[in-house]
Amino acid sequence: MIAALTNLLLPSIESELKRQISRLDQPLTKDFYEMLTYHMGWTGEDAGQEAQGKRIRPLLLLLTCASTSGITTLDHPLGTALPAAACIELIHNFSLVHDDIQDRSETRRGRPTVWRKWGEAQAINVGDALFVLAHLALGELEGIFPPEVILKGSGVIHNTCLDLTRGQYLDIAYEMQSDLTIESYWPMIAGKTAALLSACTHIGALLGNADEDLLTAYKDFGHYLGLAFQIQDDFLGIWGDVMLSGKSNKSDLTSGKKSLPVLYGLSRKGAFAQRWMQAKITPAEVPVLAEQLAREGAKTFTQETADQMMNLATRSLRLADPQGEAGEALFELTHKLLGRGS
Amino acid sequence: MIAALTNLLLPSIESELKRQISRLDQPLTKDFYEMLTYHMGWTGEDAGQEAQGKRIRPLLLLLTCASTSGITTLDHPLGTALPAAACIELIHNFSLVHDDIQDRSETRRGRPTVWRKWGEAQAINVGDALFVLAHLALGELEGIFPPEVILKGSGVIHNTCLDLTRGQYLDIAYEMQSDLTIESYWPMIAGKTAALLSACTHIGALLGNADEDLLTAYKDFGHYLGLAFQIQDDFLGIWGDVMLSGKSNKSDLTSGKKSLPVLYGLSRKGAFAQRWMQAKITPAEVPVLAEQLAREGAKTFTQETADQMMNLATRSLRLADPQGEAGEALFELTHKLLGRGS
Repeated sequence: MIAALTNLLLPSIESELKRQISRLDQPLTKDFYEMLTYHMGWTGEDAGQEAQGKRIRPLLLLLTCASTSGITTLDHPLGTALPAAACIELIHNFSLVHDDIQDRSETRRGRPTVWRKWGEAQAINVGDALFVLAHLALGELEGIFPPEVILKGSGVIHNTCLDLTRGQYLDIAYEMQSDLTIESYWPMIAGKTAALLSACTHIGALLGNADEDLLTAYKDFGHYLGLAFQIQDDFLGIWGDVMLSGKSNKSDLTSGKKSLPVLYGLSRKGAFAQRWMQAKITPAEVPVLAEQLAREGAKTFTQETADQMMNLATRSLRLADPQGEAGEALFELTHKLLGRGS
Repeated sequence: MIAALTNLLLPSIESELKRQISRLDQPLTKDFYEMLTYHMGWTGEDAGQEAQGKRIRPLLLLLTCASTSGITTLDHPLGTALPAAACIELIHNFSLVHDDIQDRSETRRGRPTVWRKWGEAQAINVGDALFVLAHLALGELEGIFPPEVILKGSGVIHNTCLDLTRGQYLDIAYEMQSDLTIESYWPMIAGKTAALLSACTHIGALLGNADEDLLTAYKDFGHYLGLAFQIQDDFLGIWGDVMLSGKSNKSDLTSGKKSLPVLYGLSRKGAFAQRWMQAKITPAEVPVLAEQLAREGAKTFTQETADQMMNLATRSLRLADPQGEAGEALFELTHKLLGRGS
């Protein structure tokens, strides 16, 4: 029943995204268009579901909109929010394309990244185009929602994007800094991850015509969900099964990323911190150092912090009291996202 | 008298830009903020007027707005259009920062580019932030202009930005293509240069409450002005005084740029084309090859094409019949821009 709603929404989201990106489907920019459809997972080698990602952000937006407007099935009002859902997913993908260049990531979702395939110059441009397409998508709400609501939503989007660049700045700047505390972590992930998830639920509620109290509850829900999600990602980036096998060279320990467990370990000033300060960690060292970091308390600390954020997220969602089938789907999505559900 | 209006507007534009960018002026993002103020020409080595550029785009927008709304001095209605003027200049600067990374340009306005100073990763982020700040600036028109006008203006901006990415794609793609015709030139510069200048006059007229006929005339004026401007830039990029002295290594002949004279030369399939096809041109060859290209007719052709576009621009501006002191300033700016005025 619940999965049914999500299963109904996903193809609509996908075709809406395709429609938005087709603005570049012109003879003169054929190859440019292909770069975007490749990144979205629709064309090129290994295209398909795996390459597309989970479309969590547009789902969150649509489910929030549905659970505040009281609509329980995929009919008119949900359909009209689709451009906003596409907008958020396009922004997410713009940031991924630029992030991959900035981090020198060679693969994403198991495939070569855009900059690896077409060079940095075009990849910067692909990211820029996705960002522009996001704004054009938002413009399509005109005539469906009142202009005041659209302008309010646009304001949320733009402020969120400014947060994204702030978080990204910190992330890059932190790489060179050795004197960071655990507190440095929060503004970085608030910008990099939580801001956009919060925008999903905020705008969903806005389009669902929620009152101020509800808006705050949904906004908080997205914010804490984003924090919990990122902390869990940090956990898996070190203690995930693939990482510990030593077969992946994508462990956060080798990339030098200042994730929560690493910042915790550095603050302990123990054996882990000593080794970290010396030189880049090699893939061969990963299992031993992950174990050392756990022994120093980082694993428990990270798990507990994720749990705290998860609790704050569900508390906010309960406060928001989302209605109907979409409301149930929101609870389900939350549990699934944080790996606690079936 | 005319210069007086421009001189009145320029400091207002500058402080509006500073106000918009100050959104990033926070303790945590101090260094990030500095990257933006450096690029804008306000801080760092050799900061000042030279480093700031001419702010032609916001001037065009404000003068158009003033000459359609019939306001002849810098009072209320012009002031209220300042965020839109800042928006356009921020978009222009976003594209410059990314362009410099894409072209590997080491200097801009005589100073090291952002990516040369702070690395590519941060430079991508600086460009993104300028783009976001442009949108936030536009949002400030809310409550001053009717929501419908703002949404219409936003639509113009977003479509213009999509044109920018299209033009940028072509520019990068052309570098690797040897079978280009002169006709390939137009969609590239229409996107890269003319779209944004057209947006300036279009939005200026929109905020000045112009009717459909006037809107079209102003839009066309900006479009042809942009084309003339770019063609003149292409001319100077090969036959400008600095280029021919052999002292600059920034000649379009050494960069491999597919400018109008180069495309003309290639279409001739003469001695210039033969040399071009062999290998990259060295700075030492520039004077001889510039002379060869002129002998093959490219210099006259480029000058004549620029003149045609210039005539179309002034014809559109006369059709628009801009009013008052601002109207005179628009004619003056046009002539100055194209190096025909005092």
